[in-house]
Amino acid sequence: MNEFDLIKRYFKTLDSRQADILIGMGDDAACLKIPPDKDLLVTTDTLVANVHFLDSWDPYDIAYKALMVNLSDIAAMGGSARYASLALTLPEANADWLARFSQGLKAGLETYQTVLIGGDMTKGPLSITITLHGWVSSGKAISRAGARPRDSIWVSGNLGAAALAVSDLQTSLFDSADKSVLMEKLLRPKPRLDLAAILQNVASAAIDISDGLAADLNHICEASGVGACLDFDAIPAHPLLKKHLAAKAIPFALEGGDDYELCFTLPLARESDCRKALEKAGLTCYRIGEIQETAGLRMTDKAGNITALSARGYQHF
Amino acid sequence: MNEFDLIKRYFKTLDSRQADILIGMGDDAACLKIPPDKDLLVTTDTLVANVHFLDSWDPYDIAYKALMVNLSDIAAMGGSARYASLALTLPEANADWLARFSQGLKAGLETYQTVLIGGDMTKGPLSITITLHGWVSSGKAISRAGARPRDSIWVSGNLGAAALAVSDLQTSLFDSADKSVLMEKLLRPKPRLDLAAILQNVASAAIDISDGLAADLNHICEASGVGACLDFDAIPAHPLLKKHLAAKAIPFALEGGDDYELCFTLPLARESDCRKALEKAGLTCYRIGEIQETAGLRMTDKAGNITALSARGYQHF
Repeated sequence: MNEFDLIKRYFKTLDSRQADILIGMGDDAACLKIPPDKDLLVTTDTLVANVHFLDSWDPYDIAYKALMVNLSDIAAMGGSARYASLALTLPEANADWLARFSQGLKAGLETYQTVLIGGDMTKGPLSITITLHGWVSSGKAISRAGARPRDSIWVSGNLGAAALAVSDLQTSLFDSADKSVLMEKLLRPKPRLDLAAILQNVASAAIDISDGLAADLNHICEASGVGACLDFDAIPAHPLLKKHLAAKAIPFALEGGDDYELCFTLPLARESDCRKALEKAGLTCYRIGEIQETAGLRMTDKAGNITALSARGYQHF
Repeated sequence: MNEFDLIKRYFKTLDSRQADILIGMGDDAACLKIPPDKDLLVTTDTLVANVHFLDSWDPYDIAYKALMVNLSDIAAMGGSARYASLALTLPEANADWLARFSQGLKAGLETYQTVLIGGDMTKGPLSITITLHGWVSSGKAISRAGARPRDSIWVSGNLGAAALAVSDLQTSLFDSADKSVLMEKLLRPKPRLDLAAILQNVASAAIDISDGLAADLNHICEASGVGACLDFDAIPAHPLLKKHLAAKAIPFALEGGDDYELCFTLPLARESDCRKALEKAGLTCYRIGEIQETAGLRMTDKAGNITALSARGYQHF
C-alpha cells in the first residue's frame, strides 16, 4: 500500500468538513477562512521515539500524547484549538500500528473539537510532528512577556506526577492503583483549555509546564525582564509524590517535566476577578509566589529564608 | 548549549516582526492576524536524512530545499507564502551545522518574503518538518478537484532533470558544466510562486510535481473524477535528458520526482487569457494534453496511437 492509500484508509476519515475549512485534507495545502474577530495561534511540537516516548508504547497513546502536548501550547496562549496538521515519519507502513495510531488521534481530536486538515507521511525513524492551529479573540492572546513586578504567580494543578511515573518505569515501586494514576498522568496529559477563557481576561503572562515549573517560569521571567520568588509551602506537589517520595516532592514538582499544567501571572488588580471566575467554573489553581524586579528565581520557606533556585528543567541536548 | 540557547543563537535572528505577526518566535505559540480578505493556506512536508537528502549534504542545501518543497505546495494553490514553522530533529547540537542550516533557511525565507514564526528543536535522527502558511485572495485557492473534461493540461517548465541528477549521483557520467546544472535543479528547486497570481484567475485545478508528472496528474484526475490524455511530443523533457539519455527522456519526465514545476488545467474559455498573461509576464508554460471523461491516464503519439500510462511515481513506502 503506498502513502496515498495509507492516508486514505487511516486518516481521511478524521477529516470533517466545516464552514471555515474551505479545502481540507488531500490537496497541496489546506485552505481556511479565519473569522475576522479571531487571531490565529500556531504551535509545533515533535515527539521522537525513545526520546519523548518508547516505541513499545501503544500507538494510540503516542498519537494521543503528541496531540495533547500541542493542545497545551494553545491553552497557554488563552486560545481554543481548531486545526491540526500531522507529519508522521514511520520505519514501515504497518496496518495495525496505523489503525491504533489513528484511533488515538481521533479520540484526542474529538475531545478537543479539533480537525485534521492535512500533513505528510514519510519513511524513516519513528517521529511525530504536529502543527496545531487555534483561535483566540482578537488582541486577547497571552504571551510570556507580560509579567510585571508584584504580579502573583499561579499554577493550574499539582505537579511532578509525570516525572514520578518516568522514574518508576524501570523500578515499579508502586502498587497497581498508584501506578495507573501515574501512567494516566504520563500518557494522557490534560491540556488546560478549560482555563483559556478565564485567563485571557486576567493573566499578564502564561506558559505551559512541559520542561518543569522552574524552567518554564524562568522563560516567563526572561521574556518579561523580571525575576520570581516562590513560596516553598505553596508548591502543589502531587499527592503520590508526598506519599512515596516525600523528601524529593518539591524538587520533582519544580524540575519534573511533562505535567502540562499552566503557570500564569496575575496583576494584583485582577486577582479577585480570577478567583471568582475559577470558583464559578469549579476549577482550583494555586498561588505559589510573586514576580519581583530582580532577575532570577528564588524560594522562601516558612522561616523566611530565601534561597536561589536553579532554572534547571528537561535538557533537550 | 541547551535547546533555548541554540534557538536564540541560530534562529531568533530570522524572526522579523511585522504588523500581521502579533507574537512571533519564542512563545508557546505564534499569534497572527490574517487579513480579512485572505484565506489561509497550510501545508506540511518532512524531509528525512538518507531518504529525501543525504546527511552528507551541506546543511545550507538541506534547509533551503526543505523550505522550497513547502513553498511549491503554496504555489500550487495559487497563493503567496507568509509564515514558516520549523520542526528540526538533530542527533547532536553541532554549532557549525546549525550555522550553515540557518544560513540556508534565511536565504530561502528572504527570497520568498516568508517569516519564521516558531517551531521545535528535538534530539533524534536528522529530519526537518516545515509547516508553511500562505495567503490567497478569498475564494481564489486552486484545488486538485476542479479539472473538467476538455480542459487542457499544462506544465510550467521542463521535467526530469532532478531525477537525472539523482541517477547520476553514483556514476558521474556528465561533464562538470552539465553536472552543475543538474545539481542546481536537485538542490535549489524553484517553487513557481511567480505563476500563482496568473493561475488563480484561470486554472481549474493545479498540483506541484513532486512525485512525478504521471503520479501527480493522476492525483488531479482522481480528485476531479476524470481521466487524462497526454501528447507524447508535447512533454517538455529537460534538454540534458535529451542530450544524455534521449531514449529514456520521456519516462524520466513522466516518472521523475523532485521537479517542483506545476501541472495545471485550463477550461477552454480561459486559455486565451492565460496565454496573454503568461506572455505579459515573460513566462513559458507547455500545453501537454487534455482532460477526458474516461478515468485513467493515456498518451497519444504522432501517429495517433493511444497507450495506457502508468501513474507510477515516487513510492514513499
